[in-house]
Amino acid sequence: MKQALLEAQKAGERGEVPVGAVVVCKDRIVARAHNLTETLTDVTAHAEMQAITAAAATLGGKYLNECTLYVTVEPCVMCAGAIAWAQVGRLVFGAEDAKRGYLHYAPQALHPKTAVLKGILAEECAGLMKEFFIAKRR
Amino acid sequence: MKQALLEAQKAGERGEVPVGAVVVCKDRIVARAHNLTETLTDVTAHAEMQAITAAAATLGGKYLNECTLYVTVEPCVMCAGAIAWAQVGRLVFGAEDAKRGYLHYAPQALHPKTAVLKGILAEECAGLMKEFFIAKRR
Repeated sequence: MKQALLEAQKAGERGEVPVGAVVVCKDRIVARAHNLTETLTDVTAHAEMQAITAAAATLGGKYLNECTLYVTVEPCVMCAGAIAWAQVGRLVFGAEDAKRGYLHYAPQALHPKTAVLKGILAEECAGLMKEFFIAKRR
Repeated sequence: MKQALLEAQKAGERGEVPVGAVVVCKDRIVARAHNLTETLTDVTAHAEMQAITAAAATLGGKYLNECTLYVTVEPCVMCAGAIAWAQVGRLVFGAEDAKRGYLHYAPQALHPKTAVLKGILAEECAGLMKEFFIAKRR
């Protein structure tokens, strides 16, 4: 999750909402990504989406059932759907997102076999988001 | 929707689940795409996702509030999330998807301003899917 936080910081530094994601397979990082929606003018360029695409490319298969996806903020509905299609083995996220998180809109969206762990480094993950939005409002 | 069906046929011809999508803005097709999840080894490569990314690139802006997205099959949760982020003005889909469609998992996933019209050329759209899966089982 510390690596995902580093990715989130990179996003924030380039004016993107600071969310970072890392995919780990058998103790090896196979993908890392941060939000690039503004840079790419593409709403689908969330950290998780890119990490899933990159991990599948690295591993040579669509399914990530032996992988853990670490992401600093609770995934949105779109990303939860992608996590389901990829059959991600384990999802670990930091801060909750009461407004846009999948747990509110689509709690059943994930694959039933995906284990979920939340609240890891939650304060640091949420802190980055708060700082970003406070700075934006100035 | 006929153009989206042509895209779906292209997908089927290359062994992909036959789903096609087209984005129209002010009477002009600004993006067309078909499912490429197998070809790209990427679960996120649904027709709608690619069409949204391509339309944003063509128009030079993330939001598609003046656009209509035509898609042959009811979007999944992932695609519904993307449609929400892009604030698509109107979603028109053909066949319903009781198993994977967003209406089952996340009926509130779309942006509240997105108008939805369903059942357009539904038989043709569903027919392509049925043919594909029957052929696959042989």
